Amino acid sequence: MKAADLVEPYPTVRLDTPVSAAARLLTEHHRPALVVVDAHDHPVAIMPASKVLRFVVPGYLQDDPALARVLDDDFAETAYAELDTKSVADLLPKERPRLLVARPEDNLLEIACLMVAENAPLVAVVDGRGKQAPMIGAITVAQVLAGILPRSG
Amino acid sequence: MKAADLVEPYPTVRLDTPVSAAARLLTEHHRPALVVVDAHDHPVAIMPASKVLRFVVPGYLQDDPALARVLDDDFAETAYAELDTKSVADLLPKERPRLLVARPEDNLLEIACLMVAENAPLVAVVDGRGKQAPMIGAITVAQVLAGILPRSG
Repeated sequence: MKAADLVEPYPTVRLDTPVSAAARLLTEHHRPALVVVDAHDHPVAIMPASKVLRFVVPGYLQDDPALARVLDDDFAETAYAELDTKSVADLLPKERPRLLVARPEDNLLEIACLMVAENAPLVAVVDGRGKQAPMIGAITVAQVLAGILPRSG
Repeated sequence: MKAADLVEPYPTVRLDTPVSAAARLLTEHHRPALVVVDAHDHPVAIMPASKVLRFVVPGYLQDDPALARVLDDDFAETAYAELDTKSVADLLPKERPRLLVARPEDNLLEIACLMVAENAPLVAVVDGRGKQAPMIGAITVAQVLAGILPRSG
């Protein structure tokens, strides 16, 4: 089984995508992470949903969760207003290592190793080598586990 | 919006569940994590799918991903045979902090803070306080983000 057999289309965001629009993508179809691409559609970062939520929740609430108890849903929605003014670039750490990506000819274990190395719930698959190779889709942890487990129960 | 409004049923595993059966749960419906419960159905750990995969992939392949390139799918399936002999207890770190859980009366921001604190793609919701409070379901990051974002596009 190769990456080419497993890869499925996956929506991407760019560095200038508003965080609000990116967060909305995650709420659809229970997507596990954002895939951030550059102007060539080459993936540059994978941002798990839990890290996006970390960005959304104000830091002073993370430091003092008891405060959250007295704040209502209207306040929660004010968090959203700020998200409209921030972009995906603000979500990413300033220094980030180059993202490892899969290629269509990679096999199941190579994909599994990559996923473990990136500690990500999915890997991006690109068509070809080089820094401008465009993304053709993604493979999730669930798909890799399903490939490793035998068909029968 | 309260945890009670968001919580949905979620399958659980026990410490003695075989890793193979637990992994299979993750491959269905793209579940983001395993929820491990004790004999009272009280949640004791949340294990993201990527950590389960880390356990499945042999350590010597993680150290030398180039080796994975020359191994075929038959080899991948031998990894599975081992999973039948291991249980969820083997997946968990020996020393683990008590899992923070949500309660039905918690509000949206409290759930968000908890999720960030646990760095988990979902939180377990239990009915009542105390170490034996049984789990009634779970809430995912996607549900919390959807609650914070306003209804309109």
